[in-house]
Amino acid sequence: MKINCVLFNDFTALDAFGPAEVFGCLEKIYQVEYFSLSGGKIKSSRTNIEVTTKPLALIQEHDILLIPGGFGTRTEVDNRALINTIRDLAEKARYVLTVCTGSALLAKTGLITQKKATSNKLSFDWVREQDTDVEWIRNARWVVDGKFYSSSGVSAGIDMALGFICDAHGIETAKAVAKGMEYLWNADKDNDPFST
Amino acid sequence: MKINCVLFNDFTALDAFGPAEVFGCLEKIYQVEYFSLSGGKIKSSRTNIEVTTKPLALIQEHDILLIPGGFGTRTEVDNRALINTIRDLAEKARYVLTVCTGSALLAKTGLITQKKATSNKLSFDWVREQDTDVEWIRNARWVVDGKFYSSSGVSAGIDMALGFICDAHGIETAKAVAKGMEYLWNADKDNDPFST
Repeated sequence: MKINCVLFNDFTALDAFGPAEVFGCLEKIYQVEYFSLSGGKIKSSRTNIEVTTKPLALIQEHDILLIPGGFGTRTEVDNRALINTIRDLAEKARYVLTVCTGSALLAKTGLITQKKATSNKLSFDWVREQDTDVEWIRNARWVVDGKFYSSSGVSAGIDMALGFICDAHGIETAKAVAKGMEYLWNADKDNDPFST
Repeated sequence: MKINCVLFNDFTALDAFGPAEVFGCLEKIYQVEYFSLSGGKIKSSRTNIEVTTKPLALIQEHDILLIPGGFGTRTEVDNRALINTIRDLAEKARYVLTVCTGSALLAKTGLITQKKATSNKLSFDWVREQDTDVEWIRNARWVVDGKFYSSSGVSAGIDMALGFICDAHGIETAKAVAKGMEYLWNADKDNDPFST
């Protein structure tokens, strides 16, 4: 299955590459690729990583759409071309995974109106404003509603990706991936130590 | 302070970008840059991230050297040009941080002979062979010996980077960074859940 990761300038590196590392551990099943609206080099916020991307228009296999957050979302929510493209891709995707303020980009498409979702806690009120008709759940490490997975801030994306692996392949596979990464998995999506 | 991150093909993304995210949270103090032996594009193992790097020879500020691990280390330990360059940079650096099998690259330089170090558990015996006169500590999330910080596998690098922040700026700063990343920090470097 293809993981199509949507990047934009000032994305948060760990939001994208944490889940990517989880899926990469099962590289015979999942292949992660990186896209942006126009393709080319995209730079992460604060960590200064310059990543080569392909244009989003080149996506042909609509398996899993992965949308990280980051300071860039503050302007990208008003980028109609990006939001319209994300809406199109998210409609076609079998699963859509958002991390942190990546949930704001998805919310802006209108696709999760009346659905449950979460986001990071420091930006929660701003994310909520992007679509107040989403059933925003503050106290959640991650939330699943149908094909939509959304996680809290940054590191929660790793927990969510392992949760996705668990749902798709069982708990033992998820535990094995976490062990290979020497990652202490918070496996309970309702256990959010940062919500208060 | 500059964090000079040494990349090579088939590095593990989270080994590098986990600690980078930690330091990026204090971007007024730490700036992360990415280098490789010849510069240019470097690709991560399994996660397929193509990162733009500068040549290692361009490093001018020798604050902190960050060396991730990954499958690429299996061949890079025999890359004399890289090992010699790492030795030179590590000698000049104020601090050297290695993650996972990045410890093997540092060990190969001979600079940590008779010093304490750790590495990830699945490759521990292979790492040990790179310099059997290092005091390898299996049961450790991370190890500090003078200016050398070394961590266990992948995610342990995030714990170590937070440990470095704690040593340099105090526990409250480290906790604040972990909270901003919504990361459940394993703050005890001797607590290694993966050593057995």
